[in-house]
Amino acid sequence: MKTFKIPEASIIRLSVYSRYLYQLDQKGVITISSGEIAEGVGVSPAQVRKDLAYFGEFGTRGVGYNVRDLHGHIMKILGLNHKWPIVIVGAGNLGSALTMYKGFLQRGFEIKGIFDSDPEKIGTEVGGYPVQPLENITKVVRDHMVEIGVITVPAPYAQETATMLVEAGVNAILNFAPRVINVPPHIEVRNVDLAVSLEILTFNLVMKRD
Amino acid sequence: MKTFKIPEASIIRLSVYSRYLYQLDQKGVITISSGEIAEGVGVSPAQVRKDLAYFGEFGTRGVGYNVRDLHGHIMKILGLNHKWPIVIVGAGNLGSALTMYKGFLQRGFEIKGIFDSDPEKIGTEVGGYPVQPLENITKVVRDHMVEIGVITVPAPYAQETATMLVEAGVNAILNFAPRVINVPPHIEVRNVDLAVSLEILTFNLVMKRD
Repeated sequence: MKTFKIPEASIIRLSVYSRYLYQLDQKGVITISSGEIAEGVGVSPAQVRKDLAYFGEFGTRGVGYNVRDLHGHIMKILGLNHKWPIVIVGAGNLGSALTMYKGFLQRGFEIKGIFDSDPEKIGTEVGGYPVQPLENITKVVRDHMVEIGVITVPAPYAQETATMLVEAGVNAILNFAPRVINVPPHIEVRNVDLAVSLEILTFNLVMKRD
Repeated sequence: MKTFKIPEASIIRLSVYSRYLYQLDQKGVITISSGEIAEGVGVSPAQVRKDLAYFGEFGTRGVGYNVRDLHGHIMKILGLNHKWPIVIVGAGNLGSALTMYKGFLQRGFEIKGIFDSDPEKIGTEVGGYPVQPLENITKVVRDHMVEIGVITVPAPYAQETATMLVEAGVNAILNFAPRVINVPPHIEVRNVDLAVSLEILTFNLVMKRD
């Protein structure tokens, strides 16, 4: 695989293309052009070709792409050609929403445990999973070779949760807590700020008016 | 304001810069260089300068940026120099999490109502807000001049919810339901797929190994 940096926006679009191709494959569509992909997901055909070109030559000139093959290629690029065990720390509303979110399982993310420090929550069920005490994190991460931990605890507990996940052995953290977490450089971290999406909307609303 | 297209990645970074500048301002920092902003948020100095250059010339050569002024400028660019009333439709786990999310209020988003169709939920409180029946959406949107509606209903109800919000008078929709919604072209829509962030992590994990 190429070692130069792929723009994150391209990765996000690949994720969108793969969902669209999956839908088409389910409908029995065999081949598709970059123009049709572009129209289906709302970007330019040149952008589709550029995003795919980072990873090699997939289509046949004049014929287009085989839908199922291209879907498989993109899923492999995204690392989604196999399942990813994950754990969720924080069984509040957001943690519960993520645990019950069907979109994770559809993309190959399998929840291996949800954890909380609150004795009132421990032992209750969220989406069919019993909420476990934090002490169980290490065992669950090791038993299931979990690589990704999702943090949905309140901000003041984000750092200690991150440290706990790293010590348990995860390689990546998705952090929904509005607090910067410090982890060793080999750990991949992605912070999700739910307000940012709203800010892109307000930016667009303001731009339209000016 | 300029009319050419600003890359969405730049808008997202502006949102990140503004949070960082706010923290610095709170700590009493007066001036900052693009290099220091870059280091603080983890991008290159050239990227910071490029993102800001879309919107004019803010800094003073050799001195840098005034922290408070730059924060104010960016907030204005993002449309966050005034408050935005919003409504949330869907009082499930995700809707409840968003309603209680303090990050919205901090950025100027004020929740004017949370709505659900479930008689069991209507009248209960979520984060201090009573859950209202869907019939109230139009009145609340009009009374508070709400421009943004947030959809957190199950996928099969996403379209009718979007239609309801548009008819009530919103100009923008943030859609968390995993379903494409059709709205008139003057309505700004942003779809949030919670799995995409995980996929960027898996992409990065796979890239590292290859």
